[in-house]
Amino acid sequence: MDTHMLTTPNAVHIRKAKVADHPAVIDIVRATGFFRPTEIEIAFEVFDEAAMNKRGSNYRSYVAEVADQVVGWICFGATPGTLGTFDVYWIVVDPARQRHRVGSQLLEFAETDIRKQKGRLIVIETSGSERYLPTRNFYEQNAYHLAADVKDFYAPGDDKWIFAKKLS
Amino acid sequence: MDTHMLTTPNAVHIRKAKVADHPAVIDIVRATGFFRPTEIEIAFEVFDEAAMNKRGSNYRSYVAEVADQVVGWICFGATPGTLGTFDVYWIVVDPARQRHRVGSQLLEFAETDIRKQKGRLIVIETSGSERYLPTRNFYEQNAYHLAADVKDFYAPGDDKWIFAKKLS
Repeated sequence: MDTHMLTTPNAVHIRKAKVADHPAVIDIVRATGFFRPTEIEIAFEVFDEAAMNKRGSNYRSYVAEVADQVVGWICFGATPGTLGTFDVYWIVVDPARQRHRVGSQLLEFAETDIRKQKGRLIVIETSGSERYLPTRNFYEQNAYHLAADVKDFYAPGDDKWIFAKKLS
Repeated sequence: MDTHMLTTPNAVHIRKAKVADHPAVIDIVRATGFFRPTEIEIAFEVFDEAAMNKRGSNYRSYVAEVADQVVGWICFGATPGTLGTFDVYWIVVDPARQRHRVGSQLLEFAETDIRKQKGRLIVIETSGSERYLPTRNFYEQNAYHLAADVKDFYAPGDDKWIFAKKLS
Protein backbone atom coordinates (compact mmCIF):
# COMPACT_ATOMS: atom_id res chain seq x y z
CA MET A 1 0.00 0.00 0.00
CA ASP A 2 1.39 3.39 -0.97
CA THR A 3 1.60 5.90 1.83
CA HIS A 4 -0.19 8.48 -0.28
CA MET A 5 -3.27 6.29 -0.10
CA LEU A 6 -3.46 7.28 3.56
CA THR A 7 -4.02 10.91 2.61
CA THR A 8 -7.73 11.62 2.52
CA PRO A 9 -9.12 14.66 0.66
CA ASN A 10 -9.84 16.28 4.01
CA ALA A 11 -6.38 15.77 5.48
CA VAL A 12 -5.10 18.85 7.29
CA HIS A 13 -1.58 19.98 6.51
CA ILE A 14 0.08 22.51 8.81
CA ARG A 15 2.96 24.67 7.62
CA LYS A 16 4.67 27.97 8.46
CA ALA A 17 2.63 31.01 7.41
CA LYS A 18 4.08 33.13 4.59
CA VAL A 19 3.53 36.74 3.59
CA ALA A 20 1.57 35.42 0.58
CA ASP A 21 -1.00 33.86 2.95
CA HIS A 22 -2.05 37.30 4.21
CA PRO A 23 -5.17 37.69 2.00
CA ALA A 24 -6.45 34.16 2.70
CA VAL A 25 -5.95 34.52 6.44
CA ILE A 26 -7.58 37.93 6.58
CA ASP A 27 -10.55 36.58 4.62
CA ILE A 28 -10.93 33.87 7.25
CA VAL A 29 -10.62 36.36 10.12
CA ARG A 30 -13.36 38.43 8.48
CA ALA A 31 -15.53 35.41 7.57
CA THR A 32 -15.76 34.32 11.20
CA GLY A 33 -17.73 37.51 11.88
CA PHE A 34 -16.21 37.48 15.35
CA PHE A 35 -13.88 40.43 15.33
CA ARG A 36 -14.30 44.17 15.51
CA PRO A 37 -12.49 46.32 12.91
CA THR A 38 -9.86 47.32 15.49
CA GLU A 39 -9.25 43.66 16.28
CA ILE A 40 -8.94 42.79 12.59
CA GLU A 41 -6.34 45.54 12.30
CA ILE A 42 -4.38 43.98 15.17
CA ALA A 43 -4.63 40.59 13.41
CA PHE A 44 -3.16 42.19 10.25
CA GLU A 45 -0.22 43.59 12.19
CA VAL A 46 0.47 40.38 14.07
CA PHE A 47 0.22 38.31 10.92
CA ASP A 48 2.62 40.53 9.01
CA GLU A 49 5.11 40.82 11.85
CA ALA A 50 5.17 37.04 12.20
CA ALA A 51 5.30 36.33 8.45
CA MET A 52 8.10 38.80 7.85
CA ASN A 53 10.11 37.29 10.70
CA LYS A 54 10.78 40.72 12.14
CA ARG A 55 13.85 40.77 14.35
CA GLY A 56 12.95 40.25 17.96
CA SER A 57 9.48 38.97 17.12
CA ASN A 58 8.29 36.24 19.46
CA TYR A 59 5.48 35.18 17.16
CA ARG A 60 5.24 31.75 15.62
CA SER A 61 2.65 31.64 12.90
CA TYR A 62 1.26 28.59 11.05
CA VAL A 63 -1.55 27.93 8.63
CA ALA A 64 -3.65 24.80 8.15
CA GLU A 65 -4.34 23.71 4.59
CA VAL A 66 -6.90 21.29 3.24
CA ALA A 67 -6.46 20.37 -0.44
CA ASP A 68 -3.93 23.22 -0.81
CA GLN A 69 -6.38 25.77 0.48
CA VAL A 70 -5.69 27.78 3.63
CA VAL A 71 -8.48 27.03 6.13
CA GLY A 72 -7.01 28.16 9.43
CA TRP A 73 -4.30 30.15 11.19
CA ILE A 74 -2.64 29.99 14.58
CA CYS A 75 -0.20 32.44 16.09
CA PHE A 76 1.51 31.79 19.39
CA GLY A 77 4.74 32.65 21.16
CA ALA A 78 6.72 32.93 24.37
CA THR A 79 5.12 35.48 26.69
CA PRO A 80 7.67 38.27 27.32
CA GLY A 81 8.78 38.56 30.92
CA THR A 82 7.86 34.98 31.85
CA LEU A 83 9.77 31.74 32.28
CA GLY A 84 8.16 29.04 30.15
CA THR A 85 4.75 30.63 29.59
CA PHE A 86 3.39 30.86 26.05
CA ASP A 87 0.42 32.74 24.67
CA VAL A 88 -1.85 31.58 21.88
CA TYR A 89 -2.58 35.01 20.44
CA TRP A 90 -4.77 34.03 17.50
CA ILE A 91 -6.52 30.94 16.31
CA VAL A 92 -9.07 31.15 13.51
CA VAL A 93 -10.69 28.54 11.30
CA ASP A 94 -12.71 29.08 8.14
CA PRO A 95 -16.37 28.84 9.28
CA ALA A 96 -17.02 26.44 6.39
CA ARG A 97 -14.39 24.08 7.84
CA GLN A 98 -15.28 24.28 11.51
CA ARG A 99 -16.33 21.04 13.24
CA HIS A 100 -13.66 19.22 11.20
CA ARG A 101 -11.01 19.36 13.96
CA VAL A 102 -8.92 21.93 12.07
CA GLY A 103 -8.81 24.12 15.20
CA SER A 104 -7.92 21.21 17.48
CA GLN A 105 -5.15 20.14 15.13
CA LEU A 106 -3.72 23.67 15.03
CA LEU A 107 -3.82 23.81 18.81
CA GLU A 108 -2.18 20.39 19.19
CA PHE A 109 0.49 21.48 16.73
CA ALA A 110 1.19 24.58 18.85
CA GLU A 111 1.32 22.50 22.04
CA THR A 112 3.87 20.12 20.51
CA ASP A 113 5.99 23.07 19.36
CA ILE A 114 5.73 24.77 22.77
CA ARG A 115 6.77 21.53 24.54
CA LYS A 116 9.85 21.40 22.30
CA GLN A 117 10.69 24.93 23.45
CA LYS A 118 10.38 23.78 27.10
CA GLY A 119 7.17 25.68 27.60
CA ARG A 120 5.29 24.72 30.77
CA LEU A 121 2.12 26.82 30.61
CA ILE A 122 -0.12 27.97 27.76
CA VAL A 123 -2.54 30.84 28.22
CA ILE A 124 -5.30 31.97 25.89
CA GLU A 125 -7.29 35.14 26.46
CA THR A 126 -10.81 35.30 25.11
CA SER A 127 -14.08 37.08 25.61
CA GLY A 128 -16.59 35.97 28.22
CA SER A 129 -19.49 37.30 26.15
CA GLU A 130 -22.39 35.16 24.94
CA ARG A 131 -21.28 34.85 21.35
CA TYR A 132 -17.88 33.46 22.33
CA LEU A 133 -19.50 30.45 24.02
CA PRO A 134 -18.48 28.09 21.15
CA THR A 135 -14.91 29.41 21.43
CA ARG A 136 -14.81 28.74 25.16
CA ASN A 137 -16.31 25.28 24.64
CA PHE A 138 -13.57 24.61 22.11
CA TYR A 139 -10.84 25.45 24.64
CA GLU A 140 -12.49 23.33 27.32
CA GLN A 141 -12.78 20.38 24.93
CA ASN A 142 -9.04 20.78 24.37
CA ALA A 143 -8.37 20.52 28.13
CA TYR A 144 -7.89 24.22 28.86
CA HIS A 145 -9.39 25.46 32.11
CA LEU A 146 -10.65 28.88 33.07
CA ALA A 147 -7.77 30.37 35.08
CA ALA A 148 -9.07 33.91 35.59
CA ASP A 149 -11.83 36.35 34.65
CA VAL A 150 -11.28 40.10 34.41
CA LYS A 151 -14.67 41.82 34.60
CA ASP A 152 -15.58 44.35 31.90
CA PHE A 153 -12.11 44.16 30.37
CA TYR A 154 -12.98 44.32 26.68
CA ALA A 155 -16.03 46.54 27.12
CA PRO A 156 -18.75 47.07 29.73
CA GLY A 157 -20.30 43.62 30.21
CA ASP A 158 -17.58 41.94 28.14
CA ASP A 159 -15.12 40.15 30.45
CA LYS A 160 -11.70 38.77 29.60
CA TRP A 161 -11.52 35.05 30.33
CA ILE A 162 -8.03 33.62 30.62
CA PHE A 163 -7.79 29.93 29.80
CA ALA A 164 -4.70 27.96 30.74
CA LYS A 165 -3.20 24.54 30.27
CA LYS A 166 -0.22 23.15 32.17
CA LEU A 167 2.06 21.07 30.01
CA SER A 168 3.44 18.02 31.73
CA MET B 1 3.04 86.16 48.79
CA ASP B 2 4.83 84.90 45.67
CA THR B 3 3.54 81.66 44.24
CA HIS B 4 7.04 80.25 44.11
CA MET B 5 7.02 80.31 47.89
CA LEU B 6 4.49 77.48 47.70
CA THR B 7 7.07 75.26 46.01
CA THR B 8 8.77 73.15 48.62
CA PRO B 9 12.13 71.50 47.93
CA ASN B 10 10.35 68.14 47.74
CA ALA B 11 7.60 69.20 45.31
CA VAL B 12 7.01 66.63 42.60
CA HIS B 13 6.82 67.87 39.04
CA ILE B 14 5.44 65.53 36.36
CA ARG B 15 6.28 66.02 32.70
CA LYS B 16 6.40 64.02 29.47
CA ALA B 17 9.37 61.67 29.27
CA LYS B 18 12.05 62.50 26.71
CA VAL B 19 14.68 60.38 24.99
CA ALA B 20 17.29 62.17 27.16
CA ASP B 21 15.64 60.71 30.29
CA HIS B 22 16.54 57.16 29.24
CA PRO B 23 19.70 56.80 31.41
CA ALA B 24 18.05 58.25 34.53
CA VAL B 25 14.97 56.03 34.14
CA ILE B 26 16.99 52.90 33.51
CA ASP B 27 19.12 53.66 36.58
CA ILE B 28 15.93 53.81 38.63
CA VAL B 29 14.58 50.58 37.13
CA ARG B 30 17.87 48.89 38.04
CA ALA B 31 18.09 50.53 41.48
CA THR B 32 14.76 49.07 42.54
CA GLY B 33 16.38 45.63 42.35
CA PHE B 34 12.97 44.29 41.34
CA PHE B 35 13.41 43.33 37.74
CA ARG B 36 15.08 40.48 35.92
CA PRO B 37 17.46 41.32 33.04
CA THR B 38 14.79 40.31 30.47
CA GLU B 39 12.30 42.63 32.16
CA ILE B 40 14.80 45.50 32.18
CA GLU B 41 15.27 44.93 28.46
CA ILE B 42 11.49 45.20 27.95
CA ALA B 43 11.52 48.43 30.00
CA PHE B 44 14.24 49.81 27.67
CA GLU B 45 12.16 49.03 24.59
CA VAL B 46 8.95 50.44 26.02
CA PHE B 47 10.69 53.59 27.22
CA ASP B 48 12.32 54.24 23.86
CA GLU B 49 9.18 53.49 21.85
CA ALA B 50 7.20 55.90 24.01
CA ALA B 51 9.88 58.63 24.08
CA MET B 52 10.40 58.52 20.33
CA ASN B 53 6.66 58.82 19.76
CA LYS B 54 6.75 55.92 17.31
CA ARG B 55 3.81 55.97 14.93
CA GLY B 56 0.97 53.85 16.21
CA SER B 57 2.42 53.66 19.72
CA ASN B 58 -0.23 53.62 22.42
CA TYR B 59 2.23 54.41 25.17
CA ARG B 60 2.06 57.55 27.26
CA SER B 61 5.20 58.05 29.25
CA TYR B 62 5.87 60.59 32.03
CA VAL B 63 8.61 61.21 34.54
CA ALA B 64 8.42 62.68 38.03
CA GLU B 65 11.08 65.19 38.99
CA VAL B 66 12.08 66.51 42.39
CA ALA B 67 14.48 69.45 42.35
CA ASP B 68 15.10 68.87 38.61
CA GLN B 69 16.11 65.27 39.21
CA VAL B 70 14.16 62.38 37.67
CA VAL B 71 12.88 60.23 40.54
CA GLY B 72 10.13 58.17 38.89
CA TRP B 73 8.57 57.00 35.66
CA ILE B 74 5.10 55.88 34.61
CA CYS B 75 4.05 54.40 31.30
CA PHE B 76 0.41 53.68 30.49
CA GLY B 77 -1.86 53.49 27.48
CA ALA B 78 -5.10 52.32 25.93
CA THR B 79 -5.23 48.51 25.88
CA PRO B 80 -5.47 47.37 22.24
CA GLY B 81 -8.70 45.57 21.39
CA THR B 82 -10.68 47.07 24.27
CA LEU B 83 -13.20 49.87 24.63
CA GLY B 84 -12.05 52.24 27.36
CA THR B 85 -9.59 49.98 29.18
CA PHE B 86 -6.11 51.26 29.93
CA ASP B 87 -3.03 49.48 31.17
CA VAL B 88 -0.41 50.89 33.50
CA TYR B 89 2.57 49.06 32.01
CA TRP B 90 5.34 50.46 34.18
CA ILE B 91 5.60 52.48 37.33
CA VAL B 92 8.93 52.85 39.08
CA VAL B 93 10.18 55.18 41.77
CA ASP B 94 13.75 55.76 42.91
CA PRO B 95 14.12 53.64 46.08
CA ALA B 96 15.64 56.68 47.82
CA ARG B 97 12.39 58.60 47.15
CA GLN B 98 9.86 55.94 47.98
CA ARG B 99 7.40 56.68 50.81
CA HIS B 100 7.26 60.29 49.58
CA ARG B 101 4.08 59.79 47.53
CA VAL B 102 5.96 60.05 44.21
CA GLY B 103 4.34 56.78 43.05
CA SER B 104 0.86 57.84 44.15
CA GLN B 105 1.26 61.16 42.38
CA LEU B 106 2.36 59.45 39.17
CA LEU B 107 -0.62 57.10 39.41
CA GLU B 108 -3.06 59.95 40.09
CA PHE B 109 -1.60 61.82 37.13
CA ALA B 110 -2.21 58.78 34.89
CA GLU B 111 -5.77 58.40 36.20
CA THR B 112 -6.55 62.03 35.40
CA ASP B 113 -5.12 61.63 31.90
CA ILE B 114 -7.05 58.38 31.34
CA ARG B 115 -10.30 60.00 32.51
CA LYS B 116 -9.72 62.77 29.93
CA GLN B 117 -9.41 60.05 27.27
CA LYS B 118 -12.76 58.59 28.41
CA GLY B 119 -11.11 55.56 29.96
CA ARG B 120 -13.40 53.58 32.24
CA LEU B 121 -11.12 50.83 33.59
CA ILE B 122 -7.44 50.70 34.57
CA VAL B 123 -5.63 47.40 34.89
CA ILE B 124 -2.19 46.76 36.33
CA GLU B 125 -0.49 43.39 36.14
CA THR B 126 2.01 42.49 38.82
CA SER B 127 3.64 39.52 40.48
CA GLY B 128 1.98 37.66 43.33
CA SER B 129 5.34 36.67 44.78
CA GLU B 130 6.47 37.57 48.28
CA ARG B 131 8.85 40.35 47.33
CA TYR B 132 6.14 42.23 45.45
CA LEU B 133 4.05 42.61 48.60
CA PRO B 134 4.95 46.33 48.97
CA THR B 135 3.96 46.85 45.32
CA ARG B 136 0.59 45.18 45.86
CA ASN B 137 0.06 47.19 49.07
CA PHE B 138 0.78 50.32 47.07
CA TYR B 139 -1.96 49.49 44.54
CA GLU B 140 -4.44 48.66 47.28
CA GLN B 141 -3.67 51.93 49.06
CA ASN B 142 -4.47 53.63 45.77
CA ALA B 143 -7.90 51.93 45.60
CA TYR B 144 -7.03 49.18 43.12
CA HIS B 145 -8.56 45.78 43.84
CA LEU B 146 -7.35 42.32 42.93
CA ALA B 147 -9.42 41.40 39.86
CA ALA B 148 -7.78 38.12 38.88
CA ASP B 149 -4.88 35.78 39.65
CA VAL B 150 -3.24 33.60 37.01
CA LYS B 151 -1.35 30.81 38.79
CA ASP B 152 2.32 30.24 37.89
CA PHE B 153 2.15 32.79 35.09
CA TYR B 154 5.56 34.44 35.45
CA ALA B 155 7.34 31.32 36.68
CA PRO B 156 6.49 28.24 38.74
CA GLY B 157 5.15 29.63 42.03
CA ASP B 158 5.06 33.18 40.67
CA ASP B 159 1.47 34.16 39.85
CA LYS B 160 0.25 37.12 37.83
CA TRP B 161 -2.06 39.32 39.87
CA ILE B 162 -4.25 41.66 37.89
CA PHE B 163 -5.31 44.77 39.77
CA ALA B 164 -8.12 46.94 38.48
CA LYS B 165 -9.82 50.22 39.20
CA LYS B 166 -13.11 51.39 37.71
CA LEU B 167 -13.16 55.08 36.94
CA SER B 168 -16.41 56.81 37.70
